[in-house]
Amino acid sequence: VNILLSGQWRADDQAAWQQALQAALPAHRVLVSRGEVADAAIAAAIVANPAPAALAGLPGLRLIQSLWAGVERLLADPTLPADVPIARMVDPAMNQAMAETALWATLSLHRGFPAYARQQADACWQPLPQRRADEVPVLVLGGGQMGGTAAEALARQGYPVTVWRRSAAGRSPDGCRAIAGMPALRAALPQAQVVINLLPLTPQTAGLIDYGFLAALPPDAGLVNLARGAHVVDADLLAALDAGALGHAVLDVFQTEPLPADHRYWRHPRVTVLPHAAAMTDHRSAAAMAARNIEALAQGAPLAHLVARDAGY
Amino acid sequence: VNILLSGQWRADDQAAWQQALQAALPAHRVLVSRGEVADAAIAAAIVANPAPAALAGLPGLRLIQSLWAGVERLLADPTLPADVPIARMVDPAMNQAMAETALWATLSLHRGFPAYARQQADACWQPLPQRRADEVPVLVLGGGQMGGTAAEALARQGYPVTVWRRSAAGRSPDGCRAIAGMPALRAALPQAQVVINLLPLTPQTAGLIDYGFLAALPPDAGLVNLARGAHVVDADLLAALDAGALGHAVLDVFQTEPLPADHRYWRHPRVTVLPHAAAMTDHRSAAAMAARNIEALAQGAPLAHLVARDAGY
Repeated sequence: VNILLSGQWRADDQAAWQQALQAALPAHRVLVSRGEVADAAIAAAIVANPAPAALAGLPGLRLIQSLWAGVERLLADPTLPADVPIARMVDPAMNQAMAETALWATLSLHRGFPAYARQQADACWQPLPQRRADEVPVLVLGGGQMGGTAAEALARQGYPVTVWRRSAAGRSPDGCRAIAGMPALRAALPQAQVVINLLPLTPQTAGLIDYGFLAALPPDAGLVNLARGAHVVDADLLAALDAGALGHAVLDVFQTEPLPADHRYWRHPRVTVLPHAAAMTDHRSAAAMAARNIEALAQGAPLAHLVARDAGY
Repeated sequence: VNILLSGQWRADDQAAWQQALQAALPAHRVLVSRGEVADAAIAAAIVANPAPAALAGLPGLRLIQSLWAGVERLLADPTLPADVPIARMVDPAMNQAMAETALWATLSLHRGFPAYARQQADACWQPLPQRRADEVPVLVLGGGQMGGTAAEALARQGYPVTVWRRSAAGRSPDGCRAIAGMPALRAALPQAQVVINLLPLTPQTAGLIDYGFLAALPPDAGLVNLARGAHVVDADLLAALDAGALGHAVLDVFQTEPLPADHRYWRHPRVTVLPHAAAMTDHRSAAAMAARNIEALAQGAPLAHLVARDAGY
């Protein structure tokens, strides 16, 4: 089949994706612009942040495969073809990278490594109290592929892990306690020493992490946001840190990216800023995962990881 | 039996140890000074960095139980009674804490978190290349209780782990490749992205990590020293970092502790300094482990974790 690769990226990045996808799909043709074949001959699109209307007017389109796990920007495009199935990227390599970052951030907060970094800046030698992992409850927001993989890695390392979903659907990650719904979340917050956000961004989850949420945590708790910047009310997070209502925040995602150079997060002693690098898409494995869905389309087999448009993920 | 608790520590620390040990040994008597009973009536000593000659002239002494895992300072005391068995502390909670620090440091080096911290100081937003864990070989020096526990935690997280012992004795940690001897070490260094030192300090291992050792690693490799400062030749480590022959060092132990405030390590951008906090002794579990050996002594049962004085550990 003919596949349109569409995204707003740097030229070298586009070339790398085209090469990886074409190598993974030797029996098919990966195009980077319309016009090389008739619009009606394009059966699939592989997209990462496509330009508005990039997919309009393709009457033969039968699959939109995202290279990204989060599809909220794609779904927000009013020109998105209405009846074409959309598939999210679910990449085991990316899940593993996300679990690594969640584990690193949890170990950092549990064992006080950001505090030791502050002490190093002052040449201050001061061992801090040490807790066992089983004394550090971790709350993972989101029980999808990434939340589940991270939760299981944390449980294997000895942390008591609770996984919260907004609704009750889905499996329970191994070794974790699963809870669902807002009342259960409110009950879990006072026990959580580390909160890791891996929710999809939807109208229901935007702004979830506000002052009330943060103030319900123990005052030395840590927040790790690996999902989307819009889950967090920035002014509330800064106010909670400044008021001593929260110990530390590890932030990988922001309302505006790159994070503006004058943003307070960069210089706050209790904020760790990462440049949206918690789990980068691996060209090799993501191309293989996308290719599997394209082959399924070509053979009439079931498509994997389809998005429920009304749920938003 | 009567047990002499002997160490050079702060008064509150001594009181905490006495309380924890007395609670764990209700049928016995834990003394903090000689003279409360006759010297000949003291059957065991529980020690942490005892003052010189603190254990001399105790004719009834049948066990010296260290509260620390490393006994090189104890063995260096010429007044140490010659024929009394010495037991090291082997504490599962301490092994777990050490494995946590080894895992945190490995994740940090693998995923570039020290580099992101340097970038944060400059408000610089720059994602860095991302490798999979299976592309990051880790070399653990030391296959004892701590080295083995750390190696297994790293292997569970997907790293290819090689465990090196100076001699060939001992079990192979699960999921790890075991090697022994100097030629095997020299052959392993060029493949290692992360080296974690958990060796005992002996005349054979002091100064092992010198310029030749570090220069044999890949230039972007990281060193994690969690054992003893004297394993590392400090001038060589600084020279290797400055020459670009090594990427980063995470150091928890130093030739002089506390690390002097004017030492270059504190301010080096490619050195993470920790205040000998990689695995602190947990009063609760260490007291329980020491109590187990005292009970064995009282009942004539075999003693655990005895030190081979000629080997030094």
